[in-house]
Amino acid sequence: MTRRLHLNAFLMNTGHHEASWRLPESDPYAHVELGHYVRLARTAERGTFDSLFLADGPQLWGSVAQRPAGALEPLTLLTALATATEHIGLIATASTSYNSPYNLARKFASLDIISGGRAGWNIVTTAGAEAARNFGLDAEPAHAERYARAGEFLDVALKLWDSWEDDAILGDKETGVWGDDTKIHPPRHRGTYFSVEGALNVPRSPQGYPLLVQAGSSEDGKNFAARYAEAVFTAQQTLADAQAFYADLKSRTAAAGRDPEHIKVLPGIVPVVGSTEAEARANEQVLEDHIVHRHGVANLERLLQLPEGTLELDAELPSELPPESAIEGARSRYTLIVELARRERLTVRRLIGRLGGGRGHLTFAGTPEQVADAIGTWFAQGAADGFNIMPAVLPSGLETFVDQVVPILRRRGLLRTEYGPRQTLRERYGLPRPANQYAPRENALV
Amino acid sequence: MTRRLHLNAFLMNTGHHEASWRLPESDPYAHVELGHYVRLARTAERGTFDSLFLADGPQLWGSVAQRPAGALEPLTLLTALATATEHIGLIATASTSYNSPYNLARKFASLDIISGGRAGWNIVTTAGAEAARNFGLDAEPAHAERYARAGEFLDVALKLWDSWEDDAILGDKETGVWGDDTKIHPPRHRGTYFSVEGALNVPRSPQGYPLLVQAGSSEDGKNFAARYAEAVFTAQQTLADAQAFYADLKSRTAAAGRDPEHIKVLPGIVPVVGSTEAEARANEQVLEDHIVHRHGVANLERLLQLPEGTLELDAELPSELPPESAIEGARSRYTLIVELARRERLTVRRLIGRLGGGRGHLTFAGTPEQVADAIGTWFAQGAADGFNIMPAVLPSGLETFVDQVVPILRRRGLLRTEYGPRQTLRERYGLPRPANQYAPRENALV
Repeated sequence: MTRRLHLNAFLMNTGHHEASWRLPESDPYAHVELGHYVRLARTAERGTFDSLFLADGPQLWGSVAQRPAGALEPLTLLTALATATEHIGLIATASTSYNSPYNLARKFASLDIISGGRAGWNIVTTAGAEAARNFGLDAEPAHAERYARAGEFLDVALKLWDSWEDDAILGDKETGVWGDDTKIHPPRHRGTYFSVEGALNVPRSPQGYPLLVQAGSSEDGKNFAARYAEAVFTAQQTLADAQAFYADLKSRTAAAGRDPEHIKVLPGIVPVVGSTEAEARANEQVLEDHIVHRHGVANLERLLQLPEGTLELDAELPSELPPESAIEGARSRYTLIVELARRERLTVRRLIGRLGGGRGHLTFAGTPEQVADAIGTWFAQGAADGFNIMPAVLPSGLETFVDQVVPILRRRGLLRTEYGPRQTLRERYGLPRPANQYAPRENALV
Repeated sequence: MTRRLHLNAFLMNTGHHEASWRLPESDPYAHVELGHYVRLARTAERGTFDSLFLADGPQLWGSVAQRPAGALEPLTLLTALATATEHIGLIATASTSYNSPYNLARKFASLDIISGGRAGWNIVTTAGAEAARNFGLDAEPAHAERYARAGEFLDVALKLWDSWEDDAILGDKETGVWGDDTKIHPPRHRGTYFSVEGALNVPRSPQGYPLLVQAGSSEDGKNFAARYAEAVFTAQQTLADAQAFYADLKSRTAAAGRDPEHIKVLPGIVPVVGSTEAEARANEQVLEDHIVHRHGVANLERLLQLPEGTLELDAELPSELPPESAIEGARSRYTLIVELARRERLTVRRLIGRLGGGRGHLTFAGTPEQVADAIGTWFAQGAADGFNIMPAVLPSGLETFVDQVVPILRRRGLLRTEYGPRQTLRERYGLPRPANQYAPRENALV
């Protein structure tokens, strides 16, 4: 069977470019309008994407002056989108630091049932003191502790999702026996972070449990992915870096005793398409021209943990910067940004322009053929199993990708031309349905 | 303006009668089928009900042998139903003991936005050790402590829902200013149970916040309702009891400094309809004949906190029972059941039969006219502002009610004949949109 590319649509209000909301076409209220997201989901489905995805953090970031702030809660929004679509996978971000396993496991099982097996969970540990302070803490838990909790969270969630065997429901009206108590398995978990006694109050869902997705790039993050993740989102700026990340993650997955084919690596790409290369660059420039630089400088200072007023717009970054180890939170993002600035000797203004498009993800401006070529190269050369498509402007950027790039990928045999018969999200990514840890071996593959 | 009756449809898998799943018409998997709930929601909407409602508890109760167990998580299911309906209110049960205010406030705000202002929250403190043990506790918190936490939870949630003024979004593309930071109000709450620093990451929703619903009947429960609730579900067996409850709750609400018109009292009723009274009674008997008595006895012993094997099927309850004060959990339910058994000198078998239908709520078997008469009497005589309709069998019981009882209520001028122009759930219940506690007075009624 031909190896096929996997595509995920990363949806974010008016687009991934921070200035996208200022374009004439954009609706500044889009982030709280269901209709906007329904249109995006149906467009991605028209492009036979595997899945769509919503990022999230349980806090309001910085100033609302800068750009559309806040978002509908992802599991809630994706449930609404489940009823507006038929095939596409629905991946919600949710935090292991600020949820309890019982509630979260149940919500994902419910979404998986309602969507007919299309739920996915982007597992995050949630960096930052702002989030911590919304949940009774004074400061964020240390990086290692967040990952320790995440590991235990997953173990508990997996027990909960397996707490009903697939055939626990009998529905025997004649004898009045609805379910088989011997096929219910309370976790009786007592651990460091969680004690969870009872079985989930939702039967096992079509996929067994949601597709497990992850995006951390730290050592802890990669080891966590190797152990649990079935798909990984990553920010990579160069083919060589992407190849190294890909090889590293596959080998860690094998070392964790799993089939490396069972983890799909999807780098992010911000495609800016034009009918000519010049038009693509002009489209990119229009976006850059809408950036409010005082916001960009403030954000960059915050990200690099520098005092306010340190950065000058038309100078390069200071030569002295804090080491990565001093950064709490998005460490790999920090390093990627500093390396990008140093490698290309970017001024702060140019760096803000580059980040405005992709926040560290690869921005690629070109013709539809050039975008398809870039995707095809990374896919063929051991850098990606697919891509996390992050349009700079929404909905137009996704529509352009689906109308102009997708047909080329299909002609080249890289992408499905239509969805197969009723498949779960996990089947679409070429992954097996997980066995139930409590079921007898002969039932395990049911 | 004529005083109008409010109707809520209390949806519960195959119906409120515990044996309903055994009827030939019932689908034993209904509780995990979205299509089942969509059909119910649309039926209730055809009957111009104000709202529909899902009960919930974060635990799997007892044995799955007895009856359909588990349920889709209510907020998730109601979000899916929001897209399948246009007018009807959507009331989800959620626990103040086993959620965090930030997450829950955000989910309800998201549902309120997605549904166009149709969200309601049935606030519960969640009795029982089973739930507690799913959330890291060894035993349930004491009754008074659960209510103390609930009060603080509400105060925090109200701050979060008000943390964006209604006009905080400017969307000024020209100047690049999206929002007005002076109209964002972080709660900065530090209390006994919660510390929540930041503003919600969702703008203020159409209703400001969900309709606040409550159903506790203990002293703590009634005082909580008087302070916060806008609608109250209650189980009452006689007109006199219902009148006393109604008068008590209205006067507590006035004493709490609120308009007693702003709390709507909805007793539960299990209507069993037949074309003649004899047919209605026969329909009731069919259900009773499907009860598995060994399950009923076990449940009753558990509820009354009696050792296994205490109760005899064809004898009355023992004369010595624990006092209400010894019951942790559903105290008012306990008293109501004991009083019912004593008042009507019911054998355990008959008591189980009566409870199988309504779990303490009024079961009323009769012709459509008789059901409408009962509803009209309670409504006219100071016992109810409306009813929580709890069909014994679903979907058929709701369909019968809508096709046969609703037209009578409409003819009598008690119920709307169609939905008005686009209204929020709160408007439908005749309640004002809440002012934002942080907004200047002149904007408070916007």
